Amino acid sequence: MAAERLVVIGGDAAGMSAASQARRLKKPEELEIIAFERSGFTSYSACGIPYWVGGDVPRHEDLIARTPEEHRERGIDLRMRTEVTELDVAGRRVRSRELVSGAEEWTSYDKLVLATGALPVRPALPGIDAPGVHGVHTIDDGRALLDSMERAPGERRAVVVGGGYIGVEMAEAMLGRGFEVTLVTRGAAPMHSLDPDMGHRVTEAMERCGIRVVTDAEVTAVRTRESGQVRAVATDSAEYPADVVVLGLGVTPRTALARAAGLPLGSSGGLRTDGSMRVRGHEDIWAGGDCVEVLDLVSGRHRFIALGTHANKHGQVIGANVGGGYGTFPGVVGTAITKVCDTEVARTGLSEREAREEGLQYVTATIESTNVAGYYPGATLMTVKMLAERRSGRLLGVQIVGGAGSAKRIDIAAVALTARMTVDQMTALDLAYAPPFSSVWDPVLVAARKAVSKLRAAG
Amino acid sequence: MAAERLVVIGGDAAGMSAASQARRLKKPEELEIIAFERSGFTSYSACGIPYWVGGDVPRHEDLIARTPEEHRERGIDLRMRTEVTELDVAGRRVRSRELVSGAEEWTSYDKLVLATGALPVRPALPGIDAPGVHGVHTIDDGRALLDSMERAPGERRAVVVGGGYIGVEMAEAMLGRGFEVTLVTRGAAPMHSLDPDMGHRVTEAMERCGIRVVTDAEVTAVRTRESGQVRAVATDSAEYPADVVVLGLGVTPRTALARAAGLPLGSSGGLRTDGSMRVRGHEDIWAGGDCVEVLDLVSGRHRFIALGTHANKHGQVIGANVGGGYGTFPGVVGTAITKVCDTEVARTGLSEREAREEGLQYVTATIESTNVAGYYPGATLMTVKMLAERRSGRLLGVQIVGGAGSAKRIDIAAVALTARMTVDQMTALDLAYAPPFSSVWDPVLVAARKAVSKLRAAG
Repeated sequence: MAAERLVVIGGDAAGMSAASQARRLKKPEELEIIAFERSGFTSYSACGIPYWVGGDVPRHEDLIARTPEEHRERGIDLRMRTEVTELDVAGRRVRSRELVSGAEEWTSYDKLVLATGALPVRPALPGIDAPGVHGVHTIDDGRALLDSMERAPGERRAVVVGGGYIGVEMAEAMLGRGFEVTLVTRGAAPMHSLDPDMGHRVTEAMERCGIRVVTDAEVTAVRTRESGQVRAVATDSAEYPADVVVLGLGVTPRTALARAAGLPLGSSGGLRTDGSMRVRGHEDIWAGGDCVEVLDLVSGRHRFIALGTHANKHGQVIGANVGGGYGTFPGVVGTAITKVCDTEVARTGLSEREAREEGLQYVTATIESTNVAGYYPGATLMTVKMLAERRSGRLLGVQIVGGAGSAKRIDIAAVALTARMTVDQMTALDLAYAPPFSSVWDPVLVAARKAVSKLRAAG
Repeated sequence: MAAERLVVIGGDAAGMSAASQARRLKKPEELEIIAFERSGFTSYSACGIPYWVGGDVPRHEDLIARTPEEHRERGIDLRMRTEVTELDVAGRRVRSRELVSGAEEWTSYDKLVLATGALPVRPALPGIDAPGVHGVHTIDDGRALLDSMERAPGERRAVVVGGGYIGVEMAEAMLGRGFEVTLVTRGAAPMHSLDPDMGHRVTEAMERCGIRVVTDAEVTAVRTRESGQVRAVATDSAEYPADVVVLGLGVTPRTALARAAGLPLGSSGGLRTDGSMRVRGHEDIWAGGDCVEVLDLVSGRHRFIALGTHANKHGQVIGANVGGGYGTFPGVVGTAITKVCDTEVARTGLSEREAREEGLQYVTATIESTNVAGYYPGATLMTVKMLAERRSGRLLGVQIVGGAGSAKRIDIAAVALTARMTVDQMTALDLAYAPPFSSVWDPVLVAARKAVSKLRAAG
């Protein structure tokens, strides 16, 4: 029997996890694996780029979990700097183009994995393509930005456009490199996946460490010097001088190929899959990572959430299924975490805005406590906001802003959301307590107790 | 209508939480509250004593959440330095004795709360009462120990007897005060609530920071100088010079009063209560804190677990019920946490020994990972051991030993145990990931994945 052929499009987390897992389950004589990757890198941590740019991580190589050579040694036929330009679903084949030589060819497949990732948002503003304006989506982006930073004139002023996770992390990174940093966001506060009251605490934390935060501001243009180099970022009401501009405006699913091939996409533009990560309606096509929609277990809706941790899980599930095993990805609860200077930030479940969009009625409970026992050295403030559904008391979401050790507590809520716990059930959780780790009532429990009171009052 | 009278025996976490919560729900004209406390302190953090002795917490006052005066201001008739010596259940009254004057009196009650706490284990060894030998159960104990430490001769050698949480914490505390510290435990490793393979990592961590750890050793005597002062701790095979000795041999429920009154005790000697914390068979008597047994939700057994976090929860539940509201304490999963020097230690659920005692068959998965992304500054090793039941795949327990940020992850497992998750379900948990907080696969997820493989192999 001739070997089956698996073709993987995309050589980062989802694609190469799928390929590696399939390879573990099936030998090369059973399953041939060909993987296409546009860039020069495989299996790298895009989430680590801000820390490399900021200097916490010395070399970009540190971000690479597995090199092309390591993948090849494991029996994966990896085609680097090669882009798949067409997908012929009926003919079970893909057309690829080597980016350097321009050579094109068709490759047939028995099974296909789409792991094309996401595309950074880049609005069509005047001056957006000026030298000195950078995205930070890939290692190549990071290198270009570091080059720009090195060449930046003496003032070293950076403007970060966008207040999401990447924007906030990049603002800190540029600060760490000695830049004077302004972050410009259209939201009422950075971190729009938090409610504004919690987002304001992030603003305060950024300002405390010397980052200027401009909110409610729409960027209208990038101004350039005579040399063509970036000079400033203009909003509808002001201009912010910039020697370097970093764009952190989020990403959209990179699904042009899938769309052209007629594969099913959700309203976000992400591919629709079933629980086994198989593209709906297509027996032999799987998809995972930043190009798919995921089921939000709290709202029951499919959403687009680009995160490396999901991509890795998708890859494992796809690899198991492609390799003749079995795996499913049940969904997400919307957990995310970051830090800015000494302040940690995390969220899971639904924010107030999201809960309203779902037609859910809820109470909120916001409490202030400390990350460790109040009397223990290093105690810092920690704020927990909790949403619970009226009547049912079901936990809907949690947001945390606080000092060291605060934010990873969001995992308590992530598990509780997965188990569909009520806040009343949460008040009895047997969470770890010792003075160097927590108050005797963990702040998450304090929030749950307050939510129970609020529910009682709301009726 | 005359006010009902609530009598509370014990003025620490459980007792005063119950009294305070009841007071919140009922005014003094509805409910009179009388509380008896043997010591001179109320509502203090016994768990904080090692950090006060070690110097991390400057004053013992810092450990006190609420003073007697503050309780009195809230309408609680608090009798300090007054011991309850007899409980007359049929007559609904208690006999108390003022410790200073020796005056005795009977006080009647309508409702009674027993919060008598625990008694430190103090074996009847020769020399155990010598000056320089100290328990660390109360603030008075801590003061006496600090006095001894100040008077200790130049060599400043301390022996800590017992390798539980308190023993380990006290060893670090004495080290912090410049003592040469030896910890003597009868177990194969300190922290006998961990499996020995994980306990050995604690031994190594202690030795790395300069604590001598003597295992498998039974203390037979305390040797004294001519002055009567402690000189050494003797085991069956050796003698360890000591200027100060700290006893950390665990505690037993302080239930002599309840036993004499015929109240139901479990095999551990702790009081048996129902879910509302009412003493079984007694309509108007509640009990909570270190004098009761709690339901272990993982094994289904009642166990004695002395922990401030449970005591506080019990107090809230009792206060709600006594005050005419409603609350229950569903049980615990056996979560505990501590640190020694730079190493964090935590556990929840069942250890291998405990699982065997329950007749459970299980697989174990032990993995090494890092507390933060491997490439992120400050990455340190973190070991996770996971137990899962054969066939059902249900999570049974987790143990963690690792660097900063490792141990509080035990809460993930605590919630998963409460929700009776399988390790397979756990592999899909949406845990927070960003490089400063975790690898892309949180170590708990890596352990869950390995447990799934082990289950498959075990059949």
